[in-house]
Amino acid sequence: MRRQIEELTDSMKRHGVDVYMITDSDEHLSEYTGAHFHALEEFSGFKGGDGRLAVTSEGEAALWTDGRYFEQAEKELSGSGIELMRMGVEGVPAWTEWIRERLKSGGCFGVDGRCLSYREGRLFEQAFSDCSIFSGDLCGEVWKNRPEQKYSECWLLDERYCGRSAADKLDALRRRMNAAGAEWCISSALDDVAWLLNLRADDIPYTPVFMGFMITGPYSSVLYTDERHFSEGSVVRDYLEKLEIEVLPYESVYEDVEAVTGSVLIDPAACNYELGSGIHPEVRIIERMSPVAEMKCRKNETERKSLRAAQHKDSAALTEFMYWFKKNVASGTLTEWGCVERLHEFRAAQADFIEESFSTISAYGANAAMAHYAPSPERDVRIEPKGLYLVDSGGQYLQGTTDVTRTWSCGEITDEERRSFTLVLMAHLRLADSKFLEGCSGLVLDGCVRDIFWRHGLNFNHGTGHGVGFCLSVHEAPVGIRYRAATLEGAYPMYEGMYVSDEPGMYEPGKYGIRTENLLLVRHDYTNEYGRFMSFETMNFCPIDKSCLDLSLMETRDVDLLNSYHERVFAELSGEFEGEALEWLKETCAPIREH
Amino acid sequence: MRRQIEELTDSMKRHGVDVYMITDSDEHLSEYTGAHFHALEEFSGFKGGDGRLAVTSEGEAALWTDGRYFEQAEKELSGSGIELMRMGVEGVPAWTEWIRERLKSGGCFGVDGRCLSYREGRLFEQAFSDCSIFSGDLCGEVWKNRPEQKYSECWLLDERYCGRSAADKLDALRRRMNAAGAEWCISSALDDVAWLLNLRADDIPYTPVFMGFMITGPYSSVLYTDERHFSEGSVVRDYLEKLEIEVLPYESVYEDVEAVTGSVLIDPAACNYELGSGIHPEVRIIERMSPVAEMKCRKNETERKSLRAAQHKDSAALTEFMYWFKKNVASGTLTEWGCVERLHEFRAAQADFIEESFSTISAYGANAAMAHYAPSPERDVRIEPKGLYLVDSGGQYLQGTTDVTRTWSCGEITDEERRSFTLVLMAHLRLADSKFLEGCSGLVLDGCVRDIFWRHGLNFNHGTGHGVGFCLSVHEAPVGIRYRAATLEGAYPMYEGMYVSDEPGMYEPGKYGIRTENLLLVRHDYTNEYGRFMSFETMNFCPIDKSCLDLSLMETRDVDLLNSYHERVFAELSGEFEGEALEWLKETCAPIREH
Repeated sequence: MRRQIEELTDSMKRHGVDVYMITDSDEHLSEYTGAHFHALEEFSGFKGGDGRLAVTSEGEAALWTDGRYFEQAEKELSGSGIELMRMGVEGVPAWTEWIRERLKSGGCFGVDGRCLSYREGRLFEQAFSDCSIFSGDLCGEVWKNRPEQKYSECWLLDERYCGRSAADKLDALRRRMNAAGAEWCISSALDDVAWLLNLRADDIPYTPVFMGFMITGPYSSVLYTDERHFSEGSVVRDYLEKLEIEVLPYESVYEDVEAVTGSVLIDPAACNYELGSGIHPEVRIIERMSPVAEMKCRKNETERKSLRAAQHKDSAALTEFMYWFKKNVASGTLTEWGCVERLHEFRAAQADFIEESFSTISAYGANAAMAHYAPSPERDVRIEPKGLYLVDSGGQYLQGTTDVTRTWSCGEITDEERRSFTLVLMAHLRLADSKFLEGCSGLVLDGCVRDIFWRHGLNFNHGTGHGVGFCLSVHEAPVGIRYRAATLEGAYPMYEGMYVSDEPGMYEPGKYGIRTENLLLVRHDYTNEYGRFMSFETMNFCPIDKSCLDLSLMETRDVDLLNSYHERVFAELSGEFEGEALEWLKETCAPIREH
Repeated sequence: MRRQIEELTDSMKRHGVDVYMITDSDEHLSEYTGAHFHALEEFSGFKGGDGRLAVTSEGEAALWTDGRYFEQAEKELSGSGIELMRMGVEGVPAWTEWIRERLKSGGCFGVDGRCLSYREGRLFEQAFSDCSIFSGDLCGEVWKNRPEQKYSECWLLDERYCGRSAADKLDALRRRMNAAGAEWCISSALDDVAWLLNLRADDIPYTPVFMGFMITGPYSSVLYTDERHFSEGSVVRDYLEKLEIEVLPYESVYEDVEAVTGSVLIDPAACNYELGSGIHPEVRIIERMSPVAEMKCRKNETERKSLRAAQHKDSAALTEFMYWFKKNVASGTLTEWGCVERLHEFRAAQADFIEESFSTISAYGANAAMAHYAPSPERDVRIEPKGLYLVDSGGQYLQGTTDVTRTWSCGEITDEERRSFTLVLMAHLRLADSKFLEGCSGLVLDGCVRDIFWRHGLNFNHGTGHGVGFCLSVHEAPVGIRYRAATLEGAYPMYEGMYVSDEPGMYEPGKYGIRTENLLLVRHDYTNEYGRFMSFETMNFCPIDKSCLDLSLMETRDVDLLNSYHERVFAELSGEFEGEALEWLKETCAPIREH
């Protein structure tokens, strides 16, 4: 048994807890969290971004994660005594089932209610209604050298980039609260708070946000955050004062929530269980998707213009990296981590670059079959002059967030790799070429993507597209293109201004991984008697590696789509290159002819 | 003002009701209802199957209905003083908004809580939280000559057709209740009760069910229904006794529900508001989709075999009708209602035919643009030897339920009609040819259908597919193929054994309507490392009218799909025809060649 699990069971026994669950969340249910909240990794050894660990007081332990992390989890859990639960695979019990089987009636289920959604907490109450629920941070009790919570300086995102004042956003929020019949609204998601106030910071990696809650009432708003976010003489203090937003200590939100009266709107997936449970039983809780999430997912005209500027810079950086990669890969001296550093240099040279929008996936050969693999200096791998290399990366700029994936040949590739690459590209290009009625679900758009794979008896184990924030989260709800919906939000309609990834893939464990990703913006095409028709604007530009194609699989339509994308890549980027590099770009973007 | 509306406002004033809403439902939220519940038609004059009427005490009235009924409602409401609210059209207020604007704080909203879902009742409570809610049947107070509720004889559906005993179904229900943590379960939907008990009857048109509720506990079940369903010496009495099901008077369910303790599962969309509100506040209400609905939508092996037999008979009847129609249409003597009668004769001649599964849509020319138009003897229309004729019909057999639509030329047709017919057919055939992973949402499958229309700037204003029952409702939740989901159930996953319609259409108001519909069964194709792959088995067989095609629009794939469907039609039906008719069938099913 891992030492950490053993110490946890000691603490569980002290509190009379029979089964304890460790989530991967912070108090805002953030996707990326500060090291202070990396309890899942500390206690299980699993470094993947998404998982759950359940431990019994006897030390039996199981970790749940999804298809993106099966391979990684298998490696990282090996020898830990923790059983890997592959979510979505037939016969694998859900965590509630697993816990239920180990929890006697009258037993005690423990979890840190601050790191669990209100929705899930309520489900646990139902599932374990004959047991008691202990909410507390048992990890914190035994976690040696736990990293401190970080408090970074808050700064103001200029309206010339984001296009809308915080005062205007707060008015719009109040109109939506009003329409929902809510006097109060709790904003829990960090990107909601940052978007609403046009504030950014550096509390957690990859997402420029700060730890804070907001409670908005009919006339006033309170921001619960740490004073350490505002240095002496910070303009942000004045700014908040002018907005008539009171700043109170972070922790006091848990007390103040008890004083809310009348009716309050919470997003049960974003509000943590302890906070939601603090609302007085007589207050009417209106559970629905955060109105801020619904507003921020539709980018305004200024944001769209900014995003084009951010994407131009990001495209130039990635294409410079591609040129460098293609020139040097035959030497056999490149490494996965070396590529991460090099790509970072190209991005960092761009104006207004803040940081990567997530940990760069730079994966050679079989490593790319792990959809969210990321190398490190300690675990570096040499790139041989054969097979495929996959790079999935993105940046945070003052003008928005980027996310892009390319797969390139390093030399000879197999026929199977060529076939998979081509199917992935066809799916990618066809999705970008969709025409659709505004208001259709994102699930409908996945149809044309999955059809290509399913007809061949193939599939990929992740969504085709996720929403992306504006100088915010690289994965932004509720926008999504997928083939299953676990909640109604998962089948959310597509509207003008949404900013979404298009990233089909193919993974063959132990052999290769392929993914091609661009970001798309939903734009209005035309309106007729049937409604408002939409199409996608492809936002980023980096050549597709034609050396990986199997032209025999492509229909005329696919060839046309690829050629027209390359024409646009060259038009967008030719001004950034010269000499030999420009020649390379020209050749790389030259049209292909049909087989 | 209509007399009925005026009388209703009198009754509203007596009860102090400011706005009253009339739904189109019975106490089980059935789609088709007995005449006793046709208050919407009585008070508004609108005969369409789906709508809501709101009336203020001053007599202002508005009726909401969806795209299927816009044309019909326009005609039927003309001169009534009732405003038509076209649901889904931009700028049209939702009924809650419309009522909210007319309801002062402290006002009173009235509705018959027995004819409203628990889910919607709760939404009204929220939306009108500053008002009082009156639940009562005001229509009944002023409705002269209201038809009586019908009580028909209950009969037992043989297990050799339906393949599973009621005892077994009750066990399965209890296992699902157990998994959901529910001690009790209320079954409200009439088809749920009929499926669970393998009982059928004739209380309401088109769906062979009887008025009844069931409350299932851990060890016992009670059926609340009228004794008049069991004649002297009925075997059903003994049968229910053996199943240990107590029969209590229908009305007493509203009292008994108050005695439920612990936890109870209700489907908030199927349970009526008054019944749900009767549950004691201390009882834990577990709201989720009816477990019976989840079971009955997946047809077992015996049901699938029965359905093939039912479909063979239904296909023969429809194809005989087609032969008769095509032979006689040039004479100019056919009429819409005449066709209904003739088609009924062909169906009624089949063994084990019970009744039509819905009111036959027999629509010539512009009438077919009204998606749910149905002729009557009083409102008959002559079919000219030109343009298009649409027939959408189905039957109830001991071996299951059918539903099929064909559009045929009556003579010359326009290029526009030809183009629309061909696009509809391509969409229809491509959907039937889908390959997909079990568990994908029905929304994903709509992608390939909508793509054909959206790419041409076209659309049709209804779902592409709905679930179909087994000798039960022709529209059976939760199966569906559509492009928007209003609830999570609307994005329900596709599983083996589901029985679903495939019916894209095109409607040009004032000109024509086209729809082609077959029923599909989800069948297991093969399983590999990516999961369980499904395909569709097309269940019914009736030629597609090749005289309506524009071959220039069809790709090779579409031509192949049509030819292979016709090959199967001929194989299935040639044994039912002889002489001239067989020659006609052969010619009609002969392959076409690509343009």
